[in-house]
Amino acid sequence: MNIEEFFELSAGKWFSHRTSHHLAFKQSEDGKSDIVIEMLAADHPEVIKLCQQYEVNPSEATCGARVTWNGTMEWDEEKHTGSTVLVTIPDADNPNEGRLLREMGYAEKAPVAGRYKMGSDDALTLTTEYETMWSEERLWFASPNLRMRVSILKRFGGFSMASFTSEIRMGGSSAAAKAAEVSNSAS
Amino acid sequence: MNIEEFFELSAGKWFSHRTSHHLAFKQSEDGKSDIVIEMLAADHPEVIKLCQQYEVNPSEATCGARVTWNGTMEWDEEKHTGSTVLVTIPDADNPNEGRLLREMGYAEKAPVAGRYKMGSDDALTLTTEYETMWSEERLWFASPNLRMRVSILKRFGGFSMASFTSEIRMGGSSAAAKAAEVSNSAS
Repeated sequence: MNIEEFFELSAGKWFSHRTSHHLAFKQSEDGKSDIVIEMLAADHPEVIKLCQQYEVNPSEATCGARVTWNGTMEWDEEKHTGSTVLVTIPDADNPNEGRLLREMGYAEKAPVAGRYKMGSDDALTLTTEYETMWSEERLWFASPNLRMRVSILKRFGGFSMASFTSEIRMGGSSAAAKAAEVSNSAS
Repeated sequence: MNIEEFFELSAGKWFSHRTSHHLAFKQSEDGKSDIVIEMLAADHPEVIKLCQQYEVNPSEATCGARVTWNGTMEWDEEKHTGSTVLVTIPDADNPNEGRLLREMGYAEKAPVAGRYKMGSDDALTLTTEYETMWSEERLWFASPNLRMRVSILKRFGGFSMASFTSEIRMGGSSAAAKAAEVSNSAS
């Protein structure tokens, strides 16, 4: 699977269930969310705009997605809603790795440098470095309708949180998912 | 890392925090446990005994471990304690894969056929097939003192549960872990 196929298979509506293990406190926190992932063509105006923010030539973008979420966390009662845009800029010598541009939120003042790597085992690894934090997330499909994510967060050099997310497709099954289902049921 | 090195790095005392996502109910359940893992030499009496139970020539065993746990689950108040013995029997043509023998519990009437596969990314994958169930577990080290596990359970052909376990070393740091720490701090 290449990164474009991973994005395509991710497109649709998902129920996302995240549990975070706060390692120092030995406590866990649950969060549930509805997530919608839409593919954006490499020449979509939002992809071009994000490239320009990062001072990247938009012709280098191969893939884009808009992610919208609407959920709740266990430890507060606020609704967590939001959306972001992601764009992949592959390395010149290896399309399976590259930069992952992310739309900046209100809280971020500077662009965040992220990297993606599509593994030969069809798992996608995302790493992000912040000033005092470092995160790595591994995403993979247990089946076309069940996506899994494990992320780990380091603060000031020590592991502080490990999170697990199971995501069940609720609809908007992508063409790729449908094709995979057909091939599964045929096997 | 080969399977012996993975077992060695696993030896010691761990605080194990597991969260299970019951996919159909969209509910999660927490469990916490102290776990002790001891390496057993390939010629240890318990390794030989387990091979004999499975009618495997003990000379084929490369690695053994005794796992002892003492914990609680969220949804009941019973103490969960127990122990088991694991033994690896590599395939003749590939030592990175093979059978994983497991001591039978009171509830099991027949030996359970398990397989292990040590990946080139240093992750260990265990698959087990029961009569109406199938499970796959992936284990890896985020660091010598932080072990992660993700498992997925299929019942009657459908995914029913996904579990995530973070395990923090509480002591009994193995020689391998110490060596890894030294090499990390040196880098």
